Amino acid sequence: MRRAVELAARGLGSTSPNPVVGCVVLNSEGHPVGEGWHQRAGGPHAEVHALAEAGDDARGGTAVVTLEPCDHTGRTGPCSRALIDAGIARVVYAVADPGANGGERTLAGAGIDVERGLLADEAAAVNAAWLTAVRVQRPYVVWKYAASLDGRSAAADGSSRWITSDAARADVHRLRARTDAVIVGSGTARADDPQLAVRGVSGAVQPLRVVIDTAATAVRPGARVLDGTAPTLIAVAQEASTAELGDAAEVLRLPRAEGGRRGLDLTALLEELYGRGVRSVLLEGGPTLAGSFVEEGLVDEVIGYVAPVLLGAGPAALGDAGIAAVAQALRLQMTESVRIGPDLRITAVPAGSARARAAAASPVTASTASHAATEES
Amino acid sequence: MRRAVELAARGLGSTSPNPVVGCVVLNSEGHPVGEGWHQRAGGPHAEVHALAEAGDDARGGTAVVTLEPCDHTGRTGPCSRALIDAGIARVVYAVADPGANGGERTLAGAGIDVERGLLADEAAAVNAAWLTAVRVQRPYVVWKYAASLDGRSAAADGSSRWITSDAARADVHRLRARTDAVIVGSGTARADDPQLAVRGVSGAVQPLRVVIDTAATAVRPGARVLDGTAPTLIAVAQEASTAELGDAAEVLRLPRAEGGRRGLDLTALLEELYGRGVRSVLLEGGPTLAGSFVEEGLVDEVIGYVAPVLLGAGPAALGDAGIAAVAQALRLQMTESVRIGPDLRITAVPAGSARARAAAASPVTASTASHAATEES
Ligand SMILES: NC(=O)c1ccc[n+]([C@@H]2O[C@H](COP(=O)([O-])OP(=O)(O)OC[C@H]3O[C@@H](n4cnc5c(N)ncnc54)[C@H](OP(=O)(O)O)[C@@H]3O)[C@@H](O)[C@H]2O)c1
Ligand SMILES: NC(=O)c1ccc[n+]([C@@H]2O[C@H](COP(=O)([O-])OP(=O)(O)OC[C@H]3O[C@@H](n4cnc5c(N)ncnc54)[C@H](OP(=O)(O)O)[C@@H]3O)[C@@H](O)[C@H]2O)c1
Repeated sequence: MRRAVELAARGLGSTSPNPVVGCVVLNSEGHPVGEGWHQRAGGPHAEVHALAEAGDDARGGTAVVTLEPCDHTGRTGPCSRALIDAGIARVVYAVADPGANGGERTLAGAGIDVERGLLADEAAAVNAAWLTAVRVQRPYVVWKYAASLDGRSAAADGSSRWITSDAARADVHRLRARTDAVIVGSGTARADDPQLAVRGVSGAVQPLRVVIDTAATAVRPGARVLDGTAPTLIAVAQEASTAELGDAAEVLRLPRAEGGRRGLDLTALLEELYGRGVRSVLLEGGPTLAGSFVEEGLVDEVIGYVAPVLLGAGPAALGDAGIAAVAQALRLQMTESVRIGPDLRITAVPAGSARARAAAASPVTASTASHAATEES
Repeated sequence: MRRAVELAARGLGSTSPNPVVGCVVLNSEGHPVGEGWHQRAGGPHAEVHALAEAGDDARGGTAVVTLEPCDHTGRTGPCSRALIDAGIARVVYAVADPGANGGERTLAGAGIDVERGLLADEAAAVNAAWLTAVRVQRPYVVWKYAASLDGRSAAADGSSRWITSDAARADVHRLRARTDAVIVGSGTARADDPQLAVRGVSGAVQPLRVVIDTAATAVRPGARVLDGTAPTLIAVAQEASTAELGDAAEVLRLPRAEGGRRGLDLTALLEELYGRGVRSVLLEGGPTLAGSFVEEGLVDEVIGYVAPVLLGAGPAALGDAGIAAVAQALRLQMTESVRIGPDLRITAVPAGSARARAAAASPVTASTASHAATEES
C-alpha cells in the first residue's frame, strides 16, 4: 500500500476533478506484477493501468488500491467491473469513496474478498485536498506565504526580492504543480506583476491563474499573468468595466462580499471554481486577501516559507483577519517543518480539522512528507 | 570528549565569569576513573573534581578536557599544576584558552603529552557565550521572542497570554537558567509586570534581572521584578529621578544612546554588565528594545518560539531596526529547529559569525542540541 500511495502522489495536480489513486496488482503468489496510477482526468483509472501491466498474472491475485475502486461508468468503465473481469480474487483498499461511486458492494457481490483501511491515514493524506473538497463542496485552500523570521513579507520600502532562497522558490513551483488553481489579490497583481506559472517542474500541468480584481483595474494587457502559459481568470464585480482588458483573459463576474466586508464574495468564487473542476487552490497572497480567507474560515492548510532574516519593519505576512484577542486566534496544528535550503518550510492545518486529527493519530504522515521534501530540495 | 562536553553543559548559568568546563580522567589502561565539571565561579575547576574522583588511578592516565587547562592562580590553584601533581601522562583538550591563562606550555614543559582540537566544534558550541564574550569584551546576547506563525507577539488588543504553549514557556525557564542576566525594556515592564525569575528548574542559579527604564518610571515598588527572588538592576538615565523607587532595586545610571537614537546607550549597559561578571544575556524584549539591539549589531543569537497560531493583527515580534530594504536585512543562519510541544523553537546566529561557520562545518552541533532539547521537553 505504501507503494500505491507513492504512485497516487504522482497524479497530484493533473487529475482534478478526480482524486489521485495508486494501484499495485499482486499475482496469486503475492508478487507485484502490475502498477498504475491515475494520470489525468479522462484517462484510465489506476486499476486499469495496473491490470493492463499485470495481464494474465492478475488472475487469482490481489489488487492493492489507495481508494475504493469506482462503480461508476463515466468517461472510462467502472473499475469494479475491470477487476472482476481480470479474475482478481482479493481487493485491499485504504480509503472509502466519500461519494456514491464506491464499488465495494459490487466487488463483494462477485465473490471478491474485500478489505478496507490499510494505511488509511497515509492514503487520505495524499488525497487530502480532493477528499476535503468533495466533503465541503469547494476547493481545498492552501495559503502559502514567504516571510522573514519576524513575520514580514516585504521590507519597509516594499522590496521583497528576495527574502527566501532560490531553493524555497523552486519548492513553490513544485507546490503550484500539484495544485489546480493559483489565486492572488489585486494588490499583489499591481505590486509584483507575477506570472503565477509553474517553472522548472518537468511534465507539470499548469494551474489555472486567478486574480481577484474587484474593479478590473489591476490587470492590464501586457501583464505577465496574461502571457498564455496557462489559462487565466480575472474575478471582477458585476458592474466592473472590463473594456480595457479586452479578451486577454476570461472574466468572471462575482457578487461583492456580504456583511460590509471588503471586496468580492470569496465563497462564490470558490463555488464557481469547484463547478469548473478545481479541487485544490494555492492562495499566494497578499496579506489582505489572505486575511479575508482566514477570517471566513476558508483556509484548509498553511504553508509558510520562513527565511532566517530579520527586517524589523515592513508589511506582515498576514493582514487583518478580524481577530482582536489571543482567545480568538486561529489555532493550527503543525504537521511538518522541514529545511528547504537555508529556509524552513512550516506546514500547519486548523486544529480540530480532519487533517489535524489524522496528523495527530499518525506521526508517520508528517515524517513521510518530510522525507519526501528533503529528497526533493 | 563527548562525555566531557555533556559534563561541561551542566555548568551553564552558574560559572560566570568563568567558562563551563567538563573533564574525564582515564586511567593508564584507558578506562574512565573520574569525572568533573566546573560547577560555580569560585569553586574547584573541572579537572580538580575529576582528579579527586580518580585518586591514585589518575597516575599515568589521560585527562580529557573541553577547554585548555588553566595556568592561573586565582581563587583556586592552577589546573596545570594539579594535573602534573596527579601524575597525568597525557592531556587531550578541545578548545584553546582565548586569554593568556592557557596551561599547555606548562604541561608540555613537565613532560606531559598534550593534544588539542578533539571535538573542538562541540566544545566551542557549549562555551559559545563565554568564548564570544571574552573575545568581544561584552556579554553574549541571545534575543528570545515568542510569536504567532505570522510573526505577532501579541494580538490587536495587546493580549499575549498565551500565544505559545506551556511547554515553550517551560523551555524559556531552562533558557533563563543557563544565562547570567535577563533584560527587558520599560515597555515590557509596564505592560506585563514580568517577574523574570527562573521557575521550575531545580538547582538553577537565578540570573540578574535588568530593566532598561530611561526615566525610571516603569518599575515601581511592588513590581514583581523587585520581589527578591533574584537581584535586580534598573538602568536609568544620568538625570532620572529614582526617588520613587527608593532602595527596592539597584540603580545603574547610563548615558543616553548616541546619534539621536532612542533611549539609553546599550553598549555602555553591556560593558557595565561585563564588568560585573555577566558573560551571557537573555534579551526578552519587547520589540522596540530588540529592534535597537539588532540595529546596533548586538545580537549574537536569536531563539524564536513560534506557535501554530494566526493573528493577522497585533504588534510584531521585532520593531524598527533601521532596516529599510531587503538588501539591508540582518541575514542569519538557522542552527536548529525543534518542536517544543505544539510549537517550534528556531535558533539562528548572524550569517558569517564564528558560530555560523562552526554550525556549517559541523551539522553535529545542531543535531546534538536538537536531541538534548527533545529529551528535555
Ligand atoms: N511574501 C509573500 O508571501 C507575498 C505573497 C503575495 C504578495 N506579497 C506582497 O503583498 C503585497 C500586496 O498585498 P496586498 O495585501 O496589498 O494585496 P492583496 O492581498 O494581493 O490584494 C488585496 C486586494 O484584493 C482585492 N480583493 C477582492 N476581494 C477581496 C476580498 N474578499 N478580501 C480581500 N481583498 C479582496 C481588494 O482590492 P480591490 O477590491 O480593489 O480589487 C484588496 O485590496 C505586495 O507587496 C506583494 O509583494 C507577498
Ligand atoms: N512575545 C514576546 O516575545 C514578547 C517579549 C517581551 C515583550 N512583549 C510584548 O511587547 C510589548 C512591549 O514592548 P515595547 O516595544 O512596547 O517595549 P520594550 O521594547 O519592552 O521597551 C522599549 C522601551 O525601552 C526603553 N529603552 C531604553 N533604552 C532603549 C534603547 N536603547 N532602545 C530601545 N528602547 C530603549 C524605551 O523607553 P524609555 O526610554 O521611556 O524607557 C523604549 O520605549 C508588551 O506588549 C509585551 O507583552 C512580547
